[in-house]
Amino acid sequence: MSMSAPRGTVDILPKDSKKWQFVEKGIKEICNNYNYEEIRTPLFEHTEVFQRGVGDSTDIVQKEMYTFEDRGGRSLTLRPEGTAAVSRAFVENKLYGDPNQPVKLYYFAQMFRYERPQKGRMRQLNQFGVEVLGSADPAVDAEVIDLAMTVYKNLGLKSLRLVINSLGDKESRTNHRNALVEHFTPHKEELCEDCRTRLTQNPLRVLDCKKDREHPAMKTAPSILDYLNEESKNYFEKVKTFLTAMGIEYIVDPNLVRGLDYYNHTAFEIMSDAEGFGAITTLAGGGRYNGLIEELGGPSTPGIGFGMGLERLLMALEAENVEIPIDHELDCYLVAVGEKTEETAVKIVHELRAKGIQVDKDYQNRKMKGQFKAADRLQAKYVLILGEDELERQVVNVKSMQTGEQVEVPITTLVEEMQGKLQGGKES
Amino acid sequence: MSMSAPRGTVDILPKDSKKWQFVEKGIKEICNNYNYEEIRTPLFEHTEVFQRGVGDSTDIVQKEMYTFEDRGGRSLTLRPEGTAAVSRAFVENKLYGDPNQPVKLYYFAQMFRYERPQKGRMRQLNQFGVEVLGSADPAVDAEVIDLAMTVYKNLGLKSLRLVINSLGDKESRTNHRNALVEHFTPHKEELCEDCRTRLTQNPLRVLDCKKDREHPAMKTAPSILDYLNEESKNYFEKVKTFLTAMGIEYIVDPNLVRGLDYYNHTAFEIMSDAEGFGAITTLAGGGRYNGLIEELGGPSTPGIGFGMGLERLLMALEAENVEIPIDHELDCYLVAVGEKTEETAVKIVHELRAKGIQVDKDYQNRKMKGQFKAADRLQAKYVLILGEDELERQVVNVKSMQTGEQVEVPITTLVEEMQGKLQGGKES
Repeated sequence: MSMSAPRGTVDILPKDSKKWQFVEKGIKEICNNYNYEEIRTPLFEHTEVFQRGVGDSTDIVQKEMYTFEDRGGRSLTLRPEGTAAVSRAFVENKLYGDPNQPVKLYYFAQMFRYERPQKGRMRQLNQFGVEVLGSADPAVDAEVIDLAMTVYKNLGLKSLRLVINSLGDKESRTNHRNALVEHFTPHKEELCEDCRTRLTQNPLRVLDCKKDREHPAMKTAPSILDYLNEESKNYFEKVKTFLTAMGIEYIVDPNLVRGLDYYNHTAFEIMSDAEGFGAITTLAGGGRYNGLIEELGGPSTPGIGFGMGLERLLMALEAENVEIPIDHELDCYLVAVGEKTEETAVKIVHELRAKGIQVDKDYQNRKMKGQFKAADRLQAKYVLILGEDELERQVVNVKSMQTGEQVEVPITTLVEEMQGKLQGGKES
Repeated sequence: MSMSAPRGTVDILPKDSKKWQFVEKGIKEICNNYNYEEIRTPLFEHTEVFQRGVGDSTDIVQKEMYTFEDRGGRSLTLRPEGTAAVSRAFVENKLYGDPNQPVKLYYFAQMFRYERPQKGRMRQLNQFGVEVLGSADPAVDAEVIDLAMTVYKNLGLKSLRLVINSLGDKESRTNHRNALVEHFTPHKEELCEDCRTRLTQNPLRVLDCKKDREHPAMKTAPSILDYLNEESKNYFEKVKTFLTAMGIEYIVDPNLVRGLDYYNHTAFEIMSDAEGFGAITTLAGGGRYNGLIEELGGPSTPGIGFGMGLERLLMALEAENVEIPIDHELDCYLVAVGEKTEETAVKIVHELRAKGIQVDKDYQNRKMKGQFKAADRLQAKYVLILGEDELERQVVNVKSMQTGEQVEVPITTLVEEMQGKLQGGKES
């Protein structure tokens, strides 16, 4: 049916949008405390940005991108992940020249992946993410992980599992890569078609394969941790020390490799262990990508970041029965009766709103009873009653729906009166 | 160059994103006061949604859409405007069944139009908009206009011009349409190619033509206001009465027709009269569209809404020299000296942030002097100094950058101390 939302996409309706707002506001406050600033990149990029920035051999680029030509014949792609786009913006806008280094960025962005939709995996998804560009200090790796964990913990999640690994520097990766090729080549014919390609292009990703997960050669595959050189080892040790100093628990998993080509040193994922959360347990994933900015035409610049699915975050909150505190009440509802009151009703509502008071009125031509019902449904704290009698005397009857108390207030002092009753207006 | 943002799109960088956040927060507060709730629809829709919801004969649908096929062969289109998508969501999610009618919605959304980029006209643009579905009360028309004007006024804009018109109901429109065809047909060959087509498909839009603006037949064209039937006239009178009651000034312009097919009754635009604002003066436009929900397969439901360009809003603020109040300061910067302090530094920063205090530290291996410079650049209110001597005694030196005053604080009470100094932590 073409009058429905496209497959793999959903509408966020008013009943849910307040949850999103609450979560986003909380995350923004945390980013501010960590001194990260927001960046917003376009919804689409030249396709080459993702081919080079995510990696040609990845599933994302090979199978999952929304790529199309615009009317001028350019190949554009809807953003499938955040790092490549932010890195492109970093290079193009020469943020490496900013005196404040590293550049600490966060984003809220929709991502687009053409996959088979399932619970927790949509074609349009919302991510929060951060990227720190310009520092190779392992304390940044720890800070980035800390920020992600703080988001979850502050929102009330408890069943979290942080898994970390090191992919080492270039030398370590090359040595490990050679060992992997040597290890898997005798079994090449037993592996899936994708893995046979991966063995040539990016053997690390064989470890990530879902089809060959049970192959006996997987268990005995050489671990990256045995191939880290001295520098990479020290780097990883520091990251772990800093995490421990902050009281953040972690598990080291040498098979955690991440699906993207450009990662090195620290890689991490945060999973939910909540019961009933579903088959896909990853809440966030990220890592260090020290070669990416050069790949995109910028000066050599270390980088690290993560992406966090917001749909999955909301699912995890639900799985752990965390209640999101949302204000469902309305400050005031104006009940106006009689055609003569129309103009004054509109004026009163306008003036209250102008002073920051939340107020609504009837637009359905309801009778008084129907208007009171509407006020009830909207959980109005106060009902303001304006009939033709009140109009003549230029007053409004203010009824507290909590106490039932009712007072007559002159229209001229109504705003002031309501501000007092609502304790200086609406909290924002 | 394929490593730049696509033509007609821009990055919103940290130096600007705080402005966007300020504007968006202010608008959300106003929406809350007016009891509007947020809706978010997907970035793309089935192309048919816009063909039917915006209108096949419009420039948007004919020339400006980003339309592509997904990997499953469906024709999708990046959202070019908000009303059709929100209306599709209203129908699909059966919001007409909600007991709270009308349904009052707002959105912040990127829109995509393939046009020649110029100042104030980008291919990816950001809009704030509202849609009220389910009421045919002229007080709603006035409320919607009031909301838009309040957004501008609250942000500090002064040089505003509100232009309104009525396109009447179906009967009035048909009579006017016939008069237009009769009026323009003798001049058909003198009009531009587009207008010759419009004369058959949607003659109202001839009045909107930029090419034929100076044709003498334009000035003598029949005015819709002379063709409004009694009901449409009364409706328009009420809208004007309500605007006046709220102290909102307006100009009636019978040539204001809006580019979209489905409008009826009230149409309006808000322009900036600020000097140097540029050639495109429209800040927001909207109107009533009582037939649209049926067109999209829903029950007969009246609707009204507007879209407001946020890039243009920011440009107008700049043109009027309105300063956006942004907090550029940082609460604390930790200066840590000596390798031994690393772990404790990370821990202190983590603990302050966990309590809502904004703090940053060095990640560039800078010496003490460089760290102080960084603190200055970030406009830190307090610098916390941790050297090896302080580490040994488990204290931190807290220096107020405003007064120069310096006190020694035990690490164990640092959070409490800083909360006190910063008056209970960070304002959010």
